[in-house]
Amino acid sequence: MARNVEDTQRRLRAAAYAEFAAHGVAGTTVTRIANRAGINKERLYAYFGDKDALFDEVLTEALEELSRAVAPTGLRFEDLGEFAGRTFDYYTEHPELARLLQWEGLRDAPPVSEEARKAHYDLKVAAAARAQRDGIIDDRIDAGHLMFMVIGLAAWWFTGPQMATLLTGKDADASGEQARRRAFVVAAAERLAGAPSAG
Amino acid sequence: MARNVEDTQRRLRAAAYAEFAAHGVAGTTVTRIANRAGINKERLYAYFGDKDALFDEVLTEALEELSRAVAPTGLRFEDLGEFAGRTFDYYTEHPELARLLQWEGLRDAPPVSEEARKAHYDLKVAAAARAQRDGIIDDRIDAGHLMFMVIGLAAWWFTGPQMATLLTGKDADASGEQARRRAFVVAAAERLAGAPSAG
Repeated sequence: MARNVEDTQRRLRAAAYAEFAAHGVAGTTVTRIANRAGINKERLYAYFGDKDALFDEVLTEALEELSRAVAPTGLRFEDLGEFAGRTFDYYTEHPELARLLQWEGLRDAPPVSEEARKAHYDLKVAAAARAQRDGIIDDRIDAGHLMFMVIGLAAWWFTGPQMATLLTGKDADASGEQARRRAFVVAAAERLAGAPSAG
Repeated sequence: MARNVEDTQRRLRAAAYAEFAAHGVAGTTVTRIANRAGINKERLYAYFGDKDALFDEVLTEALEELSRAVAPTGLRFEDLGEFAGRTFDYYTEHPELARLLQWEGLRDAPPVSEEARKAHYDLKVAAAARAQRDGIIDDRIDAGHLMFMVIGLAAWWFTGPQMATLLTGKDADASGEQARRRAFVVAAAERLAGAPSAG
C-alpha cells in the first residue's frame, strides 16, 4: 500500500478514535471525523465504508492492543491480581478505551467483533476454570463470573468516574491516589479468586 | 399545587427519564421529551428550566429512590453482601438508572447533586470505617475504595452489559443466570470485605 494511503488511513483512525471516545457513534458525524483528520470525507467512505464500520475498526484495534498489553502470564492468585492491575494501568493510560466500551454498551447493536472477542474470552475463562480444577484458585465462584469481575475491578473506576470521586472523596490525580487504587484492585482480584484473606 | 400541574410534571419527568436513559442528555431534545409526554414544551421550560436542569431533576430523584431501596442495615460481611445484592436487584429492575449514570459520567460536567450525594456516601464510608475499627470487617482495604467497589460489583453488569454476555457466555435472561449473578455479587462483596474464604 502506498505510504500516503497508509498515512491517510492512520490519520482517519486516530481522528475517529478521539471523536467516538468524546461523543459516541450517534454523537458525531463522518464529516466531523474527516474534518478532524483534515481528509476529504469521500476518502473515509472509500477506505472504511460508513461510520459504524469505522467504529468497529477502531474499537477492534483498541481491544487487540489492550489484550496484547495485559495478557495474563499465569493463574495463581498473584497472577490474577497482576492481570487486574495491568488492566487498570492500561485504562489509566487509555481512558478513551473505557469510553468507547461504554458507548458500545449503550447503543442498540451487537458487540463489535463479537465472535473474535468471545473466542478470546473463552480461552481466558477456560484457563481460570482449569486453575480452579487444579486447586490453584478457589473453585466456588463461576470462572466466567470471576473473569468478568476481575476486569470490572479495573474498569469500574473508568465507567463510573464520578462515583469514584464521590465515594473515595478524591480525584484520581490526587497525590498517591492512583497508586492506592491500583493496589486495591490487585488485592481485590486476589480476594475474589479466593486468596487467603489473612496475611 | 393543582392536580393537573402535578400530573403534567409527573408525565414530563417520566418522559425525560425514558428519553435520557435511551439517548443521553446530548442525544435528545426538549422537543422530543415534550412530545413523548404529550405536553407543550413551553410548559416544560416553565416547570423545569432547561434540558440540563431536567436531567438533574430526574437523576437526583432516581438516586434517592435507589438509596431508599437498598439502605444497608448493618456492617457485618453478610450485611455488605446483601447491600451489594439489593443494589444488583435494583439495577436489574431499573436498568435505565445504570444508563443515566453512564451518560452522566460520559458528559463533561460536574456530577448531579454533588454535595448531597457526597454527604450520603460519606456516611456510608464512615460506617464501613467504623466497622473496620471495631474489627467487624477487615481493615486492610481503604473504606472508600471498598464501598465504591461493593457498588461496582452490582453496577458493572449494567455498565458493561456486552462484556458480561461475552465473558459469561450467557445473556442475563438465560435460565437461572440472573440468580447466579446475584449470588456471585453477594459472595464477592463478602470476600472483598475480608470474609474468611473457607466455608
